[in-house]
Amino acid sequence: MNKKVLSVLVENYSGVLNRVAGLFSRRGYNIDSLTVGVTADPKYSRMTIVVTGDDDILEQIIKQISKLEEVIKVDVLEGGQSVIRELIMIKVKASQAERQQITALTDIFRANIVDVAKESLMIELIGNPSKLEAFIKMLDGFEILKLVRTGITGLARGDE
Amino acid sequence: MNKKVLSVLVENYSGVLNRVAGLFSRRGYNIDSLTVGVTADPKYSRMTIVVTGDDDILEQIIKQISKLEEVIKVDVLEGGQSVIRELIMIKVKASQAERQQITALTDIFRANIVDVAKESLMIELIGNPSKLEAFIKMLDGFEILKLVRTGITGLARGDE
Repeated sequence: MNKKVLSVLVENYSGVLNRVAGLFSRRGYNIDSLTVGVTADPKYSRMTIVVTGDDDILEQIIKQISKLEEVIKVDVLEGGQSVIRELIMIKVKASQAERQQITALTDIFRANIVDVAKESLMIELIGNPSKLEAFIKMLDGFEILKLVRTGITGLARGDE
Repeated sequence: MNKKVLSVLVENYSGVLNRVAGLFSRRGYNIDSLTVGVTADPKYSRMTIVVTGDDDILEQIIKQISKLEEVIKVDVLEGGQSVIRELIMIKVKASQAERQQITALTDIFRANIVDVAKESLMIELIGNPSKLEAFIKMLDGFEILKLVRTGITGLARGDE
């Protein structure tokens, strides 16, 4: 079992997402995360898909994705040769006293506090998956009211 | 025609993404963006979907999504009452001379340079959609080699 990050350039048509996601679900593969958004050229979108599975079957799925009419290119983002990032937003319960502790934590992680309510703080943070996990661990002891993450996106390093 | 941001809490099963995306594509609706990732409780994922369409039909789709077995809750994130964010990564062609100009821009937007290659820079930036658009506009005149965005995510303001 292996975790793979796929970067898939697709034409920006209705139903592409569905067809790509369908290739995974038909085999009972759960997508760990998926992000999709338009590129600099609005004709195209780029999907970043994280999926765990056997190498053989993943290879087959990648081949099948590549064959879809709307798919321009499939790249596999390899660990050391890519920058992998995720955005996470967390609403934490925070009394007056807890606010200071939480603010100190966000400073260390270079996170931003983006909303303050009477009894809660909303935090945004970007990082690679291990940084985000570390931050969530540090929030142990505080009550997380809501947590939302974009799923992973990334780009290959270098000039290419 | 209206743009709506849906925040959908789902059980973390294989195929949920497919079923939800299928409801849109069957009606010929293109999803503007979609993000999905696990919540603090790994049994659940939260999807954030941005879609443009007639209010009536969107209402119907929201009702149908709510009826899916794996869907716990559908919230509509309203403009003023939510914090909406997106993560974008851009690889820009940059000669020695251009590097300084680009670095100055990233400072203004509080973006981060996360990789430097011989002839390019990789930038990460979070913000609401209009901030990201403004940044991309400022890069006019530079050559964008690659651009990837997570799609929009967000949380409602306040203590709830």
